[in-house]
Amino acid sequence: MRTGVWLVGARGSVAATSIVGWLALRAGLAEPTGCVTELPGLRSPALPALGELVLGGHEIADTPLLKKAEALAAAGVVPARLVDALHDEIVTVDDDVRPLPTGDTQAATAALIAADLADFRTRLALDEVVVVNVSTTEPAPDPLPAHADLAALEEALAGPDRVLPPSSLAAYAAFTAGCSYVDFTPSTGARLPALHELAVRHGVPYAGHDGKTGETLVKSVLAPMFALRHLRVRTWSGINLLGGGDGANLAEPAANAAKTASKQRVLGETLGYQPQGTTRIEYVDDIGDFKTAWDLITFSGFLGTAMRMEFSWHGCDSALAAPLVLDLARLTAAAHAAGRHGPLPELAFFFKDPIDATAHSLDEQWRILADFVGSLPGGEH
Amino acid sequence: MRTGVWLVGARGSVAATSIVGWLALRAGLAEPTGCVTELPGLRSPALPALGELVLGGHEIADTPLLKKAEALAAAGVVPARLVDALHDEIVTVDDDVRPLPTGDTQAATAALIAADLADFRTRLALDEVVVVNVSTTEPAPDPLPAHADLAALEEALAGPDRVLPPSSLAAYAAFTAGCSYVDFTPSTGARLPALHELAVRHGVPYAGHDGKTGETLVKSVLAPMFALRHLRVRTWSGINLLGGGDGANLAEPAANAAKTASKQRVLGETLGYQPQGTTRIEYVDDIGDFKTAWDLITFSGFLGTAMRMEFSWHGCDSALAAPLVLDLARLTAAAHAAGRHGPLPELAFFFKDPIDATAHSLDEQWRILADFVGSLPGGEH
Amino acid sequence: MRTGVWLVGARGSVAATSIVGWLALRAGLAEPTGCVTELPGLRSPALPALGELVLGGHEIADTPLLKKAEALAAAGVVPARLVDALHDEIVTVDDDVRPLPTGDTQAATAALIAADLADFRTRLALDEVVVVNVSTTEPAPDPLPAHADLAALEEALAGPDRVLPPSSLAAYAAFTAGCSYVDFTPSTGARLPALHELAVRHGVPYAGHDGKTGETLVKSVLAPMFALRHLRVRTWSGINLLGGGDGANLAEPAANAAKTASKQRVLGETLGYQPQGTTRIEYVDDIGDFKTAWDLITFSGFLGTAMRMEFSWHGCDSALAAPLVLDLARLTAAAHAAGRHGPLPELAFFFKDPIDATAHSLDEQWRILADFVGSLPGGEH
Amino acid sequence: MRTGVWLVGARGSVAATSIVGWLALRAGLAEPTGCVTELPGLRSPALPALGELVLGGHEIADTPLLKKAEALAAAGVVPARLVDALHDEIVTVDDDVRPLPTGDTQAATAALIAADLADFRTRLALDEVVVVNVSTTEPAPDPLPAHADLAALEEALAGPDRVLPPSSLAAYAAFTAGCSYVDFTPSTGARLPALHELAVRHGVPYAGHDGKTGETLVKSVLAPMFALRHLRVRTWSGINLLGGGDGANLAEPAANAAKTASKQRVLGETLGYQPQGTTRIEYVDDIGDFKTAWDLITFSGFLGTAMRMEFSWHGCDSALAAPLVLDLARLTAAAHAAGRHGPLPELAFFFKDPIDATAHSLDEQWRILADFVGSLPGGEH
Ligand SMILES: NC(=O)c1ccc[n+]([C@@H]2O[C@H](COP(=O)([O-])OP(=O)(O)OC[C@H]3O[C@@H](n4cnc5c(N)ncnc54)[C@H](O)[C@@H]3O)[C@@H](O)[C@H]2O)c1
Ligand SMILES: NC(=O)c1ccc[n+]([C@@H]2O[C@H](COP(=O)([O-])OP(=O)(O)OC[C@H]3O[C@@H](n4cnc5c(N)ncnc54)[C@H](O)[C@@H]3O)[C@@H](O)[C@H]2O)c1
Ligand SMILES: NC(=O)c1ccc[n+]([C@@H]2O[C@H](COP(=O)([O-])OP(=O)(O)OC[C@H]3O[C@@H](n4cnc5c(N)ncnc54)[C@H](O)[C@@H]3O)[C@@H](O)[C@H]2O)c1
Ligand SMILES: NC(=O)c1ccc[n+]([C@@H]2O[C@H](COP(=O)([O-])OP(=O)(O)OC[C@H]3O[C@@H](n4cnc5c(N)ncnc54)[C@H](O)[C@@H]3O)[C@@H](O)[C@H]2O)c1
Ligand code: NA
Ligand code: NA
Repeated sequence: MRTGVWLVGARGSVAATSIVGWLALRAGLAEPTGCVTELPGLRSPALPALGELVLGGHEIADTPLLKKAEALAAAGVVPARLVDALHDEIVTVDDDVRPLPTGDTQAATAALIAADLADFRTRLALDEVVVVNVSTTEPAPDPLPAHADLAALEEALAGPDRVLPPSSLAAYAAFTAGCSYVDFTPSTGARLPALHELAVRHGVPYAGHDGKTGETLVKSVLAPMFALRHLRVRTWSGINLLGGGDGANLAEPAANAAKTASKQRVLGETLGYQPQGTTRIEYVDDIGDFKTAWDLITFSGFLGTAMRMEFSWHGCDSALAAPLVLDLARLTAAAHAAGRHGPLPELAFFFKDPIDATAHSLDEQWRILADFVGSLPGGEH
Repeated sequence: MRTGVWLVGARGSVAATSIVGWLALRAGLAEPTGCVTELPGLRSPALPALGELVLGGHEIADTPLLKKAEALAAAGVVPARLVDALHDEIVTVDDDVRPLPTGDTQAATAALIAADLADFRTRLALDEVVVVNVSTTEPAPDPLPAHADLAALEEALAGPDRVLPPSSLAAYAAFTAGCSYVDFTPSTGARLPALHELAVRHGVPYAGHDGKTGETLVKSVLAPMFALRHLRVRTWSGINLLGGGDGANLAEPAANAAKTASKQRVLGETLGYQPQGTTRIEYVDDIGDFKTAWDLITFSGFLGTAMRMEFSWHGCDSALAAPLVLDLARLTAAAHAAGRHGPLPELAFFFKDPIDATAHSLDEQWRILADFVGSLPGGEH
Repeated sequence: MRTGVWLVGARGSVAATSIVGWLALRAGLAEPTGCVTELPGLRSPALPALGELVLGGHEIADTPLLKKAEALAAAGVVPARLVDALHDEIVTVDDDVRPLPTGDTQAATAALIAADLADFRTRLALDEVVVVNVSTTEPAPDPLPAHADLAALEEALAGPDRVLPPSSLAAYAAFTAGCSYVDFTPSTGARLPALHELAVRHGVPYAGHDGKTGETLVKSVLAPMFALRHLRVRTWSGINLLGGGDGANLAEPAANAAKTASKQRVLGETLGYQPQGTTRIEYVDDIGDFKTAWDLITFSGFLGTAMRMEFSWHGCDSALAAPLVLDLARLTAAAHAAGRHGPLPELAFFFKDPIDATAHSLDEQWRILADFVGSLPGGEH
Repeated sequence: MRTGVWLVGARGSVAATSIVGWLALRAGLAEPTGCVTELPGLRSPALPALGELVLGGHEIADTPLLKKAEALAAAGVVPARLVDALHDEIVTVDDDVRPLPTGDTQAATAALIAADLADFRTRLALDEVVVVNVSTTEPAPDPLPAHADLAALEEALAGPDRVLPPSSLAAYAAFTAGCSYVDFTPSTGARLPALHELAVRHGVPYAGHDGKTGETLVKSVLAPMFALRHLRVRTWSGINLLGGGDGANLAEPAANAAKTASKQRVLGETLGYQPQGTTRIEYVDDIGDFKTAWDLITFSGFLGTAMRMEFSWHGCDSALAAPLVLDLARLTAAAHAAGRHGPLPELAFFFKDPIDATAHSLDEQWRILADFVGSLPGGEH
C-alpha cells in the first residue's frame, strides 16, 4: 500500500524532523525509537510499511527544507551526521513541498489545494494519501452558522469572506480529494459539523487533536495513578517553558488559550473532578526546541494527610512528535483502506484533546489502539 | 463476615495508623480516602464491610498504642482531633495487642502464636482471620534445606536452632491456625516452598510482598509510559530520604539491600531491559514519616535525541500504607471465604515485589484486581 | 528604649505571626530563629531589646486576633501550644489594635491616624514608635502632581479627592506624628517625593519595600554566584504558587504586576544584564501560607556550553516574614534614636525592592547592615 | 611574564578542555566566559596575559590529545567547530605532553619529573612554571612518619618503598624544580608537612584542593543565606550522578570518601554546626560529563516552622573546571613572581576543601581574592 503523507507546514520543526527521520529509517541509518507502530504489540501487516510511505506537503515559508534540517541539527534535535548523509534525499523530498496556493475565494483555494493532492497521488501512484496538519497553531475562529451545515458552508466558501481557518480549509480540501486528515495541532481542523458531513460523504476518516508529547503525556499516566489509589488530587499546576517557532506562536494569548485547555482536559476526565490550578505556557527563546515543563501536584491521602509530588520534564518536542506523525499516517491510511470513515476515536493514545474519546488514561488508550490495529483486515497477530 | 485483622507489629507506625483510621471510618469521622476497595470500580458485597473488621495483633514493644497514636498526631501523620475523639476505642484495641510469645523451640513459639490467633477468633466470634505482617523489615535469612520441604521444616523447628526468621514463623503459625497471611514488608514471610506446602495443606491463601506506596508506585506508571511510547530509558536513578522507625532500620545494609531490590524490579519487568542506575535509601532522622524520594530518568527518543525527567515525591509513608492494609485484609479474607488457597497474584497492585505476578504496570494490575473482585461469589456488579 | 511597633494590617497573617512570636520570645517559650538582629554579628545594645517592644496597630477586618492566631495554628504556621499558652496576652495586644479611622477628607483621616499613634505613644510611655505596613498589597496608584511636592500634597489632601493610596496616607500620618515608617509590602508607602520632604521636615527615617522572604532571597545569593564565576545567565524563569489572603490579592493583575517587578529587579542589578524570563504568581487556595516557588535558570559556561539549574522552595511566608518585621522595627527605632532621617538604604538586606540601594547581593547587603549597626551610638561590639 | 602551565593528567577531560579553550581564547574564537580573572573586578596587569601562557604536561594514557578533543566535541563539552579550527594547534600542544617518567626509586622518578619541568622552562623560555594536578583522584594514602619531616622524606624516597602517592610526588618534583603547584583534585598533593617544608625551602607557593564547580559551589552561597537569615538547617542531603572517567573513578569507595568529605566541609564551617545528611556520588555511564546533582535542604524558621528547598544542578564538569584551571595558573604564577611562598589561602574561592582557609562563603572568598589580586605589585586598579 503506497501511502502519501502530505504535511501541512512541511518545513516546520515537526515536519522536517519527521522527514529526516523517515529518510534515516528507510536508509537503515536509525532505529525506530519513538515509533509506536514498530512496537511488538502494534506492528502489523495491515499498516503500510515505512518503506511504502512517500512524503510531501504545503508550506508558506521559503527556507529550503535542507536549511531547516541543518538548523535542527545545530540545535541538537537531529544528528548532524544524518543530515549530511541524507543531503540528496532531503532535497528530493523538498521537490514535493509546494507553496500553499491561494484562490480568489476560499472555494477556489480549496480547489487548488485539492488539485495539489490529486497531482501528488497520481504522479507518485499512491494508494492512499493522508493529510497531516503540523502547521502553526491558529487562534480559535469565531463560530459561524456555515460551520454547522455542509450546504451552507459550500455556499459561504464561494463568497468573498473568510469562512474557515486554514486548518479547516485544508481538511475541506483533503476530504473533497478523497484524502483522510489528521490534525496534530490544537487548531480547529476537521472539528466542525459541516466538515464531518463532508468526510462521511467522501467516505474518509479523520483524527486529532494536538499531539500528546510532553507534560500531558505524563499527566495521562499520573492522574490515573492517583485515581486508582483513591488519593484526592487538590492542586495540579504547572508551567511549560519553550522556545522555537511553536513557542513564539503559543505565547500569543489566543493560541495559548487553545493549547492550555487541551492540556488540563485529561485531569477532569480521569479524576472525575477538576483540581485547582492551571498550566501556563511561556516563550523562552533560549530554550529552543527543548521544552522544560514543571508540575506541582498536591494531594491528600488517608485521614486527609497532605502530600505532594513535583516533576520536571526536559523533552525535545520535535523528536517526540515526529515518530507519532509517521505512526498516525500509517494508522489512518490503514483505517481508510479498511473502509473506516468519520472520526477515529481509537487514536486517542496520540492526542491531548482526542475527538469523541472517553478514555483518558494512557493505558486504556493503548488497549483501544491495540484492539483497533488487531481488528484491521490482515492485521490479526 | 466478621473478619479479624491480626497485625504483626501492631504498635508500629503503619499498624497504629491503620487502627486509628479504621476506628475513624467506623465512627463516620473520616472519608475512606486511600482505600481502594472503596472505589466504585472495586466496592463489592463480596468483601467484609469495614464495620465487620476487628483489629488486634502481636508486638514486641511496650509503648501503649495510645502513646504511639499521639506521637503520630504530633508528627502530622494522623489528625490530633481523631486521636482525642477515639481515645477510648484506641485503648480497647490495645487490649487485643499481645506480646509476641516465645517458646523453648521455634515449634513451641509457633504453637503459642497460633494459640493467640485461635483465641482471637473464638473470643470475638470471627469468620475469618487475616494475619498482616507490618513489623520491622528483617535481613534476608541464610538459605537452609529445611526451607524447601515441609516435613524437614517441621523436624527442624522442633530442634534448638533458629530455622525461620520471625516473619516466616508468623506465616507458619498463621497457616497452622487456618489463617491467611499477607506480607506488607519485604521480609521473607511465606515465600518459602515449605510454607507454600503448608498453606496448601491448610487451604489458606497468602499475599505479598512489600507495600507499594511511594517511589515504586510512581515507577509502576511511568515505566509503562516510556515503554508504550517506544522511548528508550537509559538511566533511572534515585534516592529515598526517610526517617522514623522504618527509616532507621532500612539504613542497616542488610535490610536496605532487601528493599532496594524490590524497588528496581518493576523497571526490568516493565521495560524488558534493565536501565542503568540504582535506588538508594538514606536515613534522615529529621524527615520522620514524611519521605522524600527523588528520581532522575534519562531517555532517548527518535534518532537518539537525549531527554530527561525528574520527580520528587513527598509522601507520608504510614498514611499511604494504612488504607492498603485494610484493603488487603478485606480482599484476602474474601479470597479465603471463596475457597482460594496458595498465593494471590491478583493482589500485585499493592506490592513492590508481588508473588508470582507478571504484570508490573499499575494499570494492568488494576484490571487483574478488578476482575478478581468481580469473580468472587456475590461480587458481581 | 521603649519602642512601639504599630502594624498596619494588624490582624493579617504576617502581623499575627509577628505578635504571637514576639509574645513567645518575651515569655521565653521560643528561640529567636529567623530574627537576624539576634545573630552574634548583629546583636547590639544600640537596639531596643525584644522585651522593650510594645505591639499594636490598625485593621479594617473585625476577626479578633485570637481567631486569626488559631487559624494560623490550624494551618501549621505557628504551634498550637503557643496560641494556647499565650491566649490572654494575645487578647491584650488586640486591645491595642484599632479600626482604621476615616475622616471626611484624606487630611482628616490622616489626622485621626496620627491621633491614634500619639495616643499609643503617650498611653504606653513609648520612646519611639515605628509604623510597619503589613497590610494588603495595593495596585500602583495613578501619578498625580501633588505626589511630587509637599505643599501641593497638603492642599490636595484637604480637598475631596483621593490623593494618596492607603499605604502612603499611613506614611503621611506617621511622619506628621513623628513616627518612622517601614513598608514591608510592595505598595507605594513613603516612596513619593512629597513624603520624602515630609519625613525630612519631621526628622524621621523610613525604609522599604517588600520583604524578601522566599524566591527573591534565593535569587539574591544565586545571581551573584553566577556573576562571580563569570557564567552567563540566559534564562531565569519561575512561578510562585501561593494561597492565603496575600495569594488571593496578588492574583489580581495590578497587585501581581507590582510584585513581579520587585522580584526580577535583583537579576538585572546583580548580573548587569537582564536574562530572559519572568516570574509569575499564581493563586492556589489549597497551598495556603506555604508557598511553592520553582525557578529554572539556564546558563552558559566556557566555550558556550549550555547548563541549567532548577530549584523549588517550599516556605511558610508568614513565618519567614514575621521575625523580619521585629528586626526592622528594632533597627528603624534605633536609627531614629541615633538621629537618622530620610531613607535607610542600609536596610536593603530585608527587601526585594530596596529604596536607594545599589547592592543587591545578599552578602554585600549584610555587610552594609552590620556596618550600620556597628556605627549606631552605643552599638560598637 | 611567559608562564608555563604543566598539567598532570594532560589528556584528561579537564585538561583537554582547558587546552582547547585556551587555544580558542588566544585565537579570538571564544569569549572568556567562566574565567574569573577576566571579570572587571579581578582583571589585572599583575597577572600573566592569556597569550603569555604555554601549556604542556604529563600523562599516562596514550590516546592523542586530538582524539580526546574530538571525543569531548562529540559529547557536547566543547564545540566541534573549535576542534576543527584548532586542529594543528592541538597537535602542537600534544608535543609538550610527555609520558609520566618512572625511575627505580621514587627519588629517581621525582628527578625525572623535575627534569621534564626544567626542560619545559628552558626550551620555551618561561619566566614561571605552574604545575596543576588534574589527574585521576587517588585514594587517601596511609600516613607515614616520612610525611611529617622533609629529611625523613628525602631518605625514604631514596629507598625501595612507595612513600608518596603520585600527586604528592608531583608536588615534590615541582618544588625541587622551583615550580609552584596547584591541586585541582581532592588527592593529597602538597598537603603534607614535609612538602610544606620543601615549598618554603624553594620559595614557591602552592594551592588546593579540589576545584569547586558544581553542587559545592551552590552550597557555598546557599549555606551562608540560611546562616545570615538565622534559619536553622536541619538536613542537607544530596546525590551526584556523573559519568565520564572521573565518575568511574569516584565510584571507587576510597576516592568517593575523599570527595564526599570535601563536599560537606562547607556546611559545618559556614553554619557553625553540622546538619544531618550526606552527599553521595554515583557513577552513571550514560550521563557522561554532564553531572546531575540533587540536594534536599530542610530547615526551620520562626517558632520552629518546618520548610524545605530542593535544587537540581545539571552542569558540564569539564566546562566548569577548565577556565578555573587557567585562572589558578595565572594567579599562582603572579603570586610566585610577587615573592609568595607556602600555601595561598587567598585562592579558597576556587576550592571545595581550601588549604588554611577560614572563609567558606563564596562572597567572602571573592573579597579575599580580589584584595589579593589588588595587592600584587603592579596590580592596583
Ligand atoms: N512538537 C510537539 O511536541 C507538538 C505537540 C503537539 C502539537 N504540536 C503542534 O504542531 C505544530 C507544528 O509545530 P512546530 O514546532 O513544527 O512549529 P513550527 O513553527 O516549527 O512549524 C510550523 C510550520 O507551519 C508553517 N505554516 C504556517 N501556516 C501554514 C499554512 N497555513 N499552511 C502551510 N504551512 C503553514 C510555518 O511556516 C512553519 O514552517 C504546532 O501547531 C504545534 O502546536 C507540536
Ligand atoms: N509505610 C510504608 O509506606 C511501607 C511500605 C512498604 C513496606 N513497609 C514496611 O512495613 C513495615 C512497618 O513499617 P513501620 O513504618 O510501621 O515501622 P515501625 O518501625 O514503625 O513499626 C514496626 C513495628 O514492628 C514491631 N516489631 C518488630 N519486630 C517484631 C516482631 N518480631 N513481632 C512483632 N512486632 C515486631 C516493632 O516493635 C514496631 O512497633 C516495615 O517493614 C516497612 O518496611 C512500609
Ligand atoms: N509573608 C511574606 O513573606 C511577605 C513578603 C513580602 C511582602 N509581604 C506583604 O505583606 C503584606 C501582608 O501579607 P499577609 O500575608 O499578612 O496578608 P493578609 O491578607 O493575611 O493580611 C493583610 C491584612 O491587612 C488588612 N488591611 C487591608 N487593608 C488595610 C488598611 N488599609 N489598613 C489596615 N489594614 C488593612 C487586611 O484586613 C488583612 O488583615 C502583603 O502586602 C504582602 O504582599 C509579605
Ligand atoms: N571537572 C570538575 O568539575 C572537577 C572538579 C573538581 C575536581 N576535579 C578533579 O579533576 C581531576 C580530573 O578530572 P577529569 O574529569 O579530567 O578526569 P579524567 O579521568 O578525564 O582525566 C584524568 C587524567 O589523568 C590521567 N592520569 C591518571 N593518573 C595520572 C598520573 N599519575 N600522572 C599523569 N596523568 C595521570 C589519566 O590518564 C586521565 O587522562 C579528577 O581528579 C577530578 O576529581 C574535577
Ligand atoms: Na526538580
Ligand atoms: Na524538584
